[in-house]
Amino acid sequence: MALMYTNTAMGAEDGYRLWLRYESLATTQAESLRSQARRVVIASPRTATLEAAAGELRRGIEGLSAGAPIDVIDMPAEGPGEGDVVIGTTGGDWRGAPEQTEKAIGPGGYRVSSQAVHGGTYTAVEGQDQSGVLYGVFALLRALQSGNSIDSIELADHPRVGLRLLNHWDNLDRYVERGYAGQSLWDWWRLPDLVDPRYTDYARANASIGINGTVLNNVNAAAEVLTPRYIAKAAKLADVFRPWGIRVYLSARWSAPRDIGGLDTADPLDPAVRAWWAAKADEIYAAIPDFGGFLVKANSEGQPGPREYGRSHADGANMLAAALAPHGGVVMWRAFVYSETDPEDRVRQAYTEFKPLDGTFADNVLVQVKNGPLDFQPREPFHPMFGGMPGTPLMMEFQLTKEYLGFSTHLVYLGALWEEVLQTDTFAQGGGSTVAKVVDGRLDGHELTGIAGVANIGRDRDWSGSDFDQANWYAFGRLAWNPDGDAHVIAREWLQQTFSTDPAFVEPAAELMMRSREAVVNYMTPLGLTHIMGTGHHYGPAPWVDDLGRPEWNPFYYHRADADGIGFDRTASGSNAVEQYHAPVGEQFGSLESVPDEYLLWFHRVPWDYRLRDGTTLWQALARQYDQGVGQAEAMRAEWETLGQHVDPVRRARVADYLDIQVREAKWWRDACLAYFQARSGLDWPDGVTPPPLTLDDYRAMQFPYAPGN
Amino acid sequence: MALMYTNTAMGAEDGYRLWLRYESLATTQAESLRSQARRVVIASPRTATLEAAAGELRRGIEGLSAGAPIDVIDMPAEGPGEGDVVIGTTGGDWRGAPEQTEKAIGPGGYRVSSQAVHGGTYTAVEGQDQSGVLYGVFALLRALQSGNSIDSIELADHPRVGLRLLNHWDNLDRYVERGYAGQSLWDWWRLPDLVDPRYTDYARANASIGINGTVLNNVNAAAEVLTPRYIAKAAKLADVFRPWGIRVYLSARWSAPRDIGGLDTADPLDPAVRAWWAAKADEIYAAIPDFGGFLVKANSEGQPGPREYGRSHADGANMLAAALAPHGGVVMWRAFVYSETDPEDRVRQAYTEFKPLDGTFADNVLVQVKNGPLDFQPREPFHPMFGGMPGTPLMMEFQLTKEYLGFSTHLVYLGALWEEVLQTDTFAQGGGSTVAKVVDGRLDGHELTGIAGVANIGRDRDWSGSDFDQANWYAFGRLAWNPDGDAHVIAREWLQQTFSTDPAFVEPAAELMMRSREAVVNYMTPLGLTHIMGTGHHYGPAPWVDDLGRPEWNPFYYHRADADGIGFDRTASGSNAVEQYHAPVGEQFGSLESVPDEYLLWFHRVPWDYRLRDGTTLWQALARQYDQGVGQAEAMRAEWETLGQHVDPVRRARVADYLDIQVREAKWWRDACLAYFQARSGLDWPDGVTPPPLTLDDYRAMQFPYAPGN
Repeated sequence: MALMYTNTAMGAEDGYRLWLRYESLATTQAESLRSQARRVVIASPRTATLEAAAGELRRGIEGLSAGAPIDVIDMPAEGPGEGDVVIGTTGGDWRGAPEQTEKAIGPGGYRVSSQAVHGGTYTAVEGQDQSGVLYGVFALLRALQSGNSIDSIELADHPRVGLRLLNHWDNLDRYVERGYAGQSLWDWWRLPDLVDPRYTDYARANASIGINGTVLNNVNAAAEVLTPRYIAKAAKLADVFRPWGIRVYLSARWSAPRDIGGLDTADPLDPAVRAWWAAKADEIYAAIPDFGGFLVKANSEGQPGPREYGRSHADGANMLAAALAPHGGVVMWRAFVYSETDPEDRVRQAYTEFKPLDGTFADNVLVQVKNGPLDFQPREPFHPMFGGMPGTPLMMEFQLTKEYLGFSTHLVYLGALWEEVLQTDTFAQGGGSTVAKVVDGRLDGHELTGIAGVANIGRDRDWSGSDFDQANWYAFGRLAWNPDGDAHVIAREWLQQTFSTDPAFVEPAAELMMRSREAVVNYMTPLGLTHIMGTGHHYGPAPWVDDLGRPEWNPFYYHRADADGIGFDRTASGSNAVEQYHAPVGEQFGSLESVPDEYLLWFHRVPWDYRLRDGTTLWQALARQYDQGVGQAEAMRAEWETLGQHVDPVRRARVADYLDIQVREAKWWRDACLAYFQARSGLDWPDGVTPPPLTLDDYRAMQFPYAPGN
Repeated sequence: MALMYTNTAMGAEDGYRLWLRYESLATTQAESLRSQARRVVIASPRTATLEAAAGELRRGIEGLSAGAPIDVIDMPAEGPGEGDVVIGTTGGDWRGAPEQTEKAIGPGGYRVSSQAVHGGTYTAVEGQDQSGVLYGVFALLRALQSGNSIDSIELADHPRVGLRLLNHWDNLDRYVERGYAGQSLWDWWRLPDLVDPRYTDYARANASIGINGTVLNNVNAAAEVLTPRYIAKAAKLADVFRPWGIRVYLSARWSAPRDIGGLDTADPLDPAVRAWWAAKADEIYAAIPDFGGFLVKANSEGQPGPREYGRSHADGANMLAAALAPHGGVVMWRAFVYSETDPEDRVRQAYTEFKPLDGTFADNVLVQVKNGPLDFQPREPFHPMFGGMPGTPLMMEFQLTKEYLGFSTHLVYLGALWEEVLQTDTFAQGGGSTVAKVVDGRLDGHELTGIAGVANIGRDRDWSGSDFDQANWYAFGRLAWNPDGDAHVIAREWLQQTFSTDPAFVEPAAELMMRSREAVVNYMTPLGLTHIMGTGHHYGPAPWVDDLGRPEWNPFYYHRADADGIGFDRTASGSNAVEQYHAPVGEQFGSLESVPDEYLLWFHRVPWDYRLRDGTTLWQALARQYDQGVGQAEAMRAEWETLGQHVDPVRRARVADYLDIQVREAKWWRDACLAYFQARSGLDWPDGVTPPPLTLDDYRAMQFPYAPGN
């Protein structure tokens, strides 16, 4: 299509601007904004953060109002005037404001309000602290971009979770593990000499949704990131991010004292090891005074860890915590562990290993737990550690990059998945003990709280590999800010800022996004199936794989389909994973009468002719669900024909091209999985089901040696 | 610097537009252009190429004249009018033009001229063929961007070389071997579904400098590129490139019949192998009707090849040529071979192996030869195959990506290097037998001619990893078009289009570029030293390496420095590589009296107290040259303070940051090399030389495990 290249070099909608587009509003709205936002006034002593906030406000107002450049000034002696947008921190250093807002909106909190002056009004953006001003500015810009008027505006909010972090699984050679959006953003080789302007845009985007920290490197960490050469590079990034309220963290390789420290041990109880880490922390903080801390993957999938020395995860975490504590840093210790030798049901192992350690972690340790007990599958029950570790701050780990959900080429809105997890009731302290309340500290009274998201961000011009994957970045930030947030509302917000505020577009597009997650579950892993993707790269279906070295590496381990039936018995008669949940959750999962259909095969092994509550057999239901998933994908593609009319031609075409891929691959998943399960079960095809177009051998023969992210 | 992020999202000078910026001219020039270029008229039947040319012309005129949108129309019945810019092919299909230009400007040739009409003038862009129109349009735009008036314009030119190709050393996983500008441009994973608009901009940029072909994948080739899945991806790129006169080629892995073809042999004389390649060629041409052909690296650095079967390179090349000949494709067979077992001086081996094959290659085979007999070093004598293979079309292989010249972070203008090579006299048929004449076919009467450049292009926003590395892409295209081109003139052209037409900037900046190549020779490998870079990644100095498996892998092999002296004896008393050159070149190189200082240690082994013609000892001269290189780098950095005033702040700062790296690394090269040679020679430091700041052990200990491109 000619238009794509015609505009390329000069501002095609390439997705770079994310949800911070600041396109001109409709004429009357733009005129109104011009008259009511004539200049930006900084009411507190200038800092880098206030200047960043003021610059963003100016950029946003100029764009939205399509107006002349506006000034940024310090508060004049006479106080604010009509049409000013005044920003500053509440309390003593707010200079010249006519009145004080009450305090106690909370750290990072803000209030945006219209204030009377000289018979007119000005707009006040008051932050509880520096970051609060920044968040207030972005809240105001979000409101304006979403079509709200600055007139009589009243906004107030504060974050419910302390650490709102991205985890980058980025290697030092710029390869991104499970990355589908190009190379790492971090140009380690040219840092610290070259500072890509894009680093600032990354920080802006994060600040706009409340993210306040980023772990720069892969949890499968290279020890070299802790050498002086790389600390200097990380410090340069920290300098860029600091004005935007974002701290830098690093993934620490447990064996660093051996790898780069010249020691012959990494035993956490060895004094030399403890001294090495303490000195390393001192060195890092000398370069990065507000360094956030370490993320650690230990004794997991081949990574070294304290278990090599017979020490516990708590021994390991607490040793690092002691090194960081004098500087105010934290340790985020991942609970994603399963043993290479333990025959226990893999989904039980983390709970089994960590539960006895509850209450033994140092004050500046969080245990970082994936949302489900397996590994970011399209649907998992919530991880039983949530509600099971009351004495330990648990940090939620979500995965933004769609390792198991179609890479960046399927439209899957993860807000729906995350909301489902966060709003699940653990019953840890009776009804209402949601995962959200565990994570935000309310349930167990923890002050130290956090949510981490494995980033879907790379060097692709559109950051996330597709236009709609940007929504997952956005939704993560918004749900980390408030784990009780509404994914549907967040989808609307994102659509309004990213594409169009036209209600004829926004509402159906938001509904499409909300349905997209159920679609991918249906065409990949319906009825509680899980982990049946291709080996290594995790691309496409491969339920037949049963020849890998360890049982739990094999898809077959998770479904065990044969002529008799299908599913993994996790009831008391099986692995009894249900016992790790509180009553009545475990009982609900453990009983065929009460288990929700979507978890049926996760917890139960049933015969092929098992009748679901709706009367269909399992085999019929499986075929139906797969087909329904394909139908949902096709429906999204069809709806986009209409919805896309509201979108510029370049992005419209790109989204359509991606949806074409999604439909094709949904069919592939359905056909390959049903071909396999039919062969295992030996059953005839249910009535109305079209047999797959290829043979099972054809599906098994497909190879993808250059799949990304592997 | 605040400005960088302020503008980032909205059109900072990020280098994306290359030399096709089409910024508004000065007011009077813009006004003049507006009046003389009011619309674009297509005078021949519309084709995709003519529409591409017309679109580019419109885009360029609109930008340069800062005028209103202009129309593109077909030639009206009344013929062209005043202020028209008429484009079309010469000959019968030029419709409505008042006069015919004489033909025979040559394939790809063009004439741009002012023509009288109705008392005014219009501008005619006549191409000998479709590509000629495109090249004429870009020539016109180049002239306008460089500050010339469209008034009374008269331009005519045609390419002197047939195949003007980029070679991408891009792997199917998007890693670029020796790439310093990010991942591969080719998003193989999402192709053919997703067609990045950037592919079109790549084609535009190449067409603008006359490049007419591109080899998509690495010479260290994966056989999978020849499978249907990847042929479909390559075909999609070919579709994008076709309107811009650019053909697609592929690197073929010799063993493909074994790897993906199900055969147990790749013997070129085996009928099944021949049939497999013929069928593969048929399959490719069915998808890509104008497919260019194969590039092959065989029996080189571990790649498979016909020698495994006791067959010659000619046997191999001719077998592939037979498969391609029915479709009009060519084979480009690389001469970069050296044996893992042959003790012969490495720089002799290619000539030794290929010379006896001269005249035995099929008509559609070119032998592709690197500019020097070693491997793209900062300075090498020309490859003796040039002038030594009169019966074979030799294709020049230059390297744009600066594997051995400071990656993308050193400013080194390669136009100066290439011009030096092309203008060297081989004396193959007496004086005046320049390398350029070998390459463009004049010397030996070859019709099939070509120049290849190993691309320096990647996913970085600025394409080449730095602003000044774009000049090497540009200069390559211009010298491939005309190997007798003037590198200094080309530098000026590029500067005018890329930065500023102000003569106060252009001339000194062009001189800086021309000097930059000598600088890097001086601070890396002066006086004929060569191949003393770091192992594997080729980053930084490592003349001390002498423990690698094969002698010729070691830097030590190339200088052999010890207490007695330094250098590689390639005279009759040594390897006698000089015998591979024609008289009097071999004699000049072989004699200490006549060898140029810059090739001294390449051809001769001399004692440390050997006196150069200027009276200094070798040791003194070595120290002096290294120091001079550092001084030249420092001078470039200092000059940029002034020159940068003519450049926008973003690019100004970026170039300055890169020059800071270059100065630092130039010092590192000088200090590390001199520390090593001082230790080998045991001599005192020459008067006036400051000993290195670190010990030799310090330099030897430096490790760079994550260097790019390795």
